[in-house]
Amino acid sequence: MATKSHLVLFFLLLVSCSILSHSKKLKANEPCKRFVLYFHDVMFNGTNQANATAAIIANPTDLSQTFKFGKFVVFDDPMTEDNNLLSRPVARAQGFYFYDMKTDFNAWFAYTLVFNSTKHKGTISILGADTMSEETRDLSVVGGTGDFFLTRGIATFRTEDVEGASYFRVQMDIKLYECYKN
Amino acid sequence: MATKSHLVLFFLLLVSCSILSHSKKLKANEPCKRFVLYFHDVMFNGTNQANATAAIIANPTDLSQTFKFGKFVVFDDPMTEDNNLLSRPVARAQGFYFYDMKTDFNAWFAYTLVFNSTKHKGTISILGADTMSEETRDLSVVGGTGDFFLTRGIATFRTEDVEGASYFRVQMDIKLYECYKN
Amino acid sequence: MATKSHLVLFFLLLVSCSILSHSKKLKANEPCKRFVLYFHDVMFNGTNQANATAAIIANPTDLSQTFKFGKFVVFDDPMTEDNNLLSRPVARAQGFYFYDMKTDFNAWFAYTLVFNSTKHKGTISILGADTMSEETRDLSVVGGTGDFFLTRGIATFRTEDVEGASYFRVQMDIKLYECYKN
Repeated sequence: MATKSHLVLFFLLLVSCSILSHSKKLKANEPCKRFVLYFHDVMFNGTNQANATAAIIANPTDLSQTFKFGKFVVFDDPMTEDNNLLSRPVARAQGFYFYDMKTDFNAWFAYTLVFNSTKHKGTISILGADTMSEETRDLSVVGGTGDFFLTRGIATFRTEDVEGASYFRVQMDIKLYECYKN
Repeated sequence: MATKSHLVLFFLLLVSCSILSHSKKLKANEPCKRFVLYFHDVMFNGTNQANATAAIIANPTDLSQTFKFGKFVVFDDPMTEDNNLLSRPVARAQGFYFYDMKTDFNAWFAYTLVFNSTKHKGTISILGADTMSEETRDLSVVGGTGDFFLTRGIATFRTEDVEGASYFRVQMDIKLYECYKN
Repeated sequence: MATKSHLVLFFLLLVSCSILSHSKKLKANEPCKRFVLYFHDVMFNGTNQANATAAIIANPTDLSQTFKFGKFVVFDDPMTEDNNLLSRPVARAQGFYFYDMKTDFNAWFAYTLVFNSTKHKGTISILGADTMSEETRDLSVVGGTGDFFLTRGIATFRTEDVEGASYFRVQMDIKLYECYKN
């Protein structure tokens, strides 16, 4: 009898402990928060100052003019909930990217999503390689502030539209695996 | 009697488990380490090589000359414990920032605090948006080494002084929420 | 008798809890994954397009021509398992570095290791100060994807070879302390 109740207690406590330390058992298919946003990059061409949200600060090098090796762009791009450039932005993406491959288009990004609405206040910072030859690419969410206090996760890129050098749109599927109450 | 002692055991163990897994219950007002430092940025103007600690590597673009869109600065700036530029630095801040808004001053930072004293050895790496229109801005502490092994946290910026394009000082209130013994 | 079995249970459970929450007790000498790779940087000089994997996008400033303050390089460098530049790469290192000291050679790196083999798929992102005057330097692993889902850790640099401005090789000892199954 005593042994039986001991066993019950044992499992009860094991479960309690397991729940308490649960936060470290991350599973890729179980984010604690997730949202899909669209990134719109409208490049400045010298005359479209009203609409442009990105500008080149270093031109491609001769290591590869074809794939723009070294072209460096600073942006303050709108993030929208649907794929329409003219929809009301829910965040700004502020940061940079540059091209870094000789034999294909390939880029490296670092930027911060700045949320400032009634729904969300705070930031999410993202960086990593954008291996554009693949249909989807995973970058790293390395930090957050405000509503996204100390978050970490994955941002999956999927290019939706490219209009020459003047505009491109990327779907960003942002999955957070560490969510803390601030 | 047996039941009562079981209950005592139950709570005792629950508390033990809770303490053991405590490190993941982060609270914004309970950092495990905190310090306030001052960042001094003295811009190179072509003649002040002795005093300057920062230099422009890309000039503003025409997307916005007014708010210096695209101006890119590399720095090795002193960090002091009080707000006096001439105080002995306790760390160096090595990294870069650039301006990235058309309609206001706004910047993006990525840098590493390098500590090398008897008090602290190691680094803290910080990045994020510096939304300068707000009185205080939170950036992300994304990693650390040495005494700050694998740390994470928040760096809160507060601009204290701006002297044209030649000097500015930012108070950085650094709060760490993951602290490991190395 | 009852008391004795209670004590046994108590310790059994404490150990269970300890194991469950173990992942947060990081020790610098106990990484969950570790590998040593070699980074080869072959600079583009205007004529070596076939071999070069890195290119300058901003030249040194006059703040220090001697130590190349502000020189900014974008790279897509091979990572090999031994120190031979011609060995088959196991990953690409895609990112940038720049020099940032007036009085000595010193750099700041941010880059992503892109693995795409039968052995490893995924990325590891690394950033931090490369204080080149020290024999070894620790940078921060701030994120990962794929096989390296949400990893964190330390990358220890050790310069192995420098051939003027045309080539250098750095041993990177990468120690990961957070390893999750994806």
